[in-house]
Amino acid sequence: MQAVLYKLFIKYKFSESQARTLARTYTESTLDGVNSHGINRVPLFIKYVEDGVVLQDAEAKKVETFGSIERWDGKLGPGICNAVKCTNRAIELAKLHGMGIVALRNTNHWMRGGTYGWQAADAGCISILFTNTQPNMPPWGGKDSRLGNNPLVVSIPRENGHVVLDMAISQFAFGKINDYRLRGAKLPFAGGWDNNNELSNDPEKILLKERGLPIGYWKGSALSIILDMLATLLSAGNSTYKIGLKEYETGISQVYLCISPEIFDNKAQEEKLLNEIIDYSHDVEPMHPGTKVYYPGERTLQTRARNLKNGMTVSEEVWQQVMDLLA
Amino acid sequence: MQAVLYKLFIKYKFSESQARTLARTYTESTLDGVNSHGINRVPLFIKYVEDGVVLQDAEAKKVETFGSIERWDGKLGPGICNAVKCTNRAIELAKLHGMGIVALRNTNHWMRGGTYGWQAADAGCISILFTNTQPNMPPWGGKDSRLGNNPLVVSIPRENGHVVLDMAISQFAFGKINDYRLRGAKLPFAGGWDNNNELSNDPEKILLKERGLPIGYWKGSALSIILDMLATLLSAGNSTYKIGLKEYETGISQVYLCISPEIFDNKAQEEKLLNEIIDYSHDVEPMHPGTKVYYPGERTLQTRARNLKNGMTVSEEVWQQVMDLLA
Repeated sequence: MQAVLYKLFIKYKFSESQARTLARTYTESTLDGVNSHGINRVPLFIKYVEDGVVLQDAEAKKVETFGSIERWDGKLGPGICNAVKCTNRAIELAKLHGMGIVALRNTNHWMRGGTYGWQAADAGCISILFTNTQPNMPPWGGKDSRLGNNPLVVSIPRENGHVVLDMAISQFAFGKINDYRLRGAKLPFAGGWDNNNELSNDPEKILLKERGLPIGYWKGSALSIILDMLATLLSAGNSTYKIGLKEYETGISQVYLCISPEIFDNKAQEEKLLNEIIDYSHDVEPMHPGTKVYYPGERTLQTRARNLKNGMTVSEEVWQQVMDLLA
Repeated sequence: MQAVLYKLFIKYKFSESQARTLARTYTESTLDGVNSHGINRVPLFIKYVEDGVVLQDAEAKKVETFGSIERWDGKLGPGICNAVKCTNRAIELAKLHGMGIVALRNTNHWMRGGTYGWQAADAGCISILFTNTQPNMPPWGGKDSRLGNNPLVVSIPRENGHVVLDMAISQFAFGKINDYRLRGAKLPFAGGWDNNNELSNDPEKILLKERGLPIGYWKGSALSIILDMLATLLSAGNSTYKIGLKEYETGISQVYLCISPEIFDNKAQEEKLLNEIIDYSHDVEPMHPGTKVYYPGERTLQTRARNLKNGMTVSEEVWQQVMDLLA
């Protein structure tokens, strides 16, 4: 997959280095089971390139420095390449100063946010990363979607598998809601508003209008607005409001905060504390016999191991689309 | 109220400076309408003092410095005084370095977390603050409460009223659930688990066993565990697991992260960006005619103004308890 995608991105005029980063990241997200932001997303990404929304020759540049806080401009380059670069820079700042922030404006969709959480953790850093998006959830009490689902990633390095939280502030992704629709199933919990302004777990009804439900109702609504404010202020970039004025979701704002726990210089104690927390939740009796409790990131590692052994599952339709683009 | 509480805390052997901070903070929280963590909480706080859980003569001390990250030990002193001190220190670090973290261990309940968000915003700082707690929510899929509701505060300074998010990771506080029980009302949404391991909005059933529901189900469960890990790791303090082993909720761990947007040196632009985001969500048509959409912190400011004008509402029973303690 990585070799095929590399050829595709070269065909679409990305530099060799960009094509390598893109091919690797789309493949790794698929390997981790996140096909929605891995291989499935490639055709739409190519459409964005063809429509001039993602600029192949652009890459993020530092525009302002304030000690351990830096502002970067993504120049509307590919979101994955910008995100990898800014994560690396936040890691560097953290190793230098204990912690660092890169605030990135004018970038494009970073695909699977978790990618950069794993990247930071592999480099030994704690990371707190978030992005704003186009509006897709109503603020609590409002009728129209004016909040982004603003994915939030937090990662913590750990010897026996990093802890990586990767979650949007919406209860369900619209892609996930559509999966339920295709299976003719209802969501397990309410996921958005129907046309009568009632909360619904019926994918058909929710998808008539994109009005997603924030996690925790009013709480996620407030959290989404705060993340948008932080990303916009720190990067001096576009807010969800400004992004919503565009025809495409582009020119978005992101924050990469890294902390280097190496400065504490007590790796053994850190591992002990982390394992204590993990064991405590793991050792709980399951609510339903036969089920299990997981820590954030655990199932990703299991999927990765399974896919490395058995191969990845990819939709034939999606693979054919990629082949057609290459042809 | 402030004068009465000052006398009370002096009677209970707090220093003049501690008594002033405690009296002011409990009063301000009540003024802002958060009686549950203001005046209503004073009798329980005094019980903790009498039982030797909160130590009057103790105050937080810096134990380790790593550049702009510091570790402090709360010495089991009053949580409010420790929190005010550590917020001030995080503000100082932010003004000095652009951003700073104070990680505090061995402290006691900070009462209303929002207090320190307002404090940071008044000093011109962005703040991200969180605490761990005793276990009161099951991890997703588990039977027993092994996660804390770990309140999270984020504040952003703004000329026409700061933006302050102050939320626990539980859907409803147990105090709030009890309010519904006393009124004989059901919760508007599920708030915890009943004895049959079913989600319930019936306060009676939820309160039989303290098993609260995290916001966003599995998402809040993961967020709670991550906040506990960060607070525990950064402070080298007790995790929710360790706190749960104690008879009282004490020796908890907290993080105070401040960022000084002054370094960006463009106050006018920051105000413009913030107002743009607020206006966008404010201008939305309400879902139910006659209702309104608020930004985080807006209703606190309204309550504060109303109470400053009309006086605060305090339960006569609670006030009598305070009087009895003073007598």
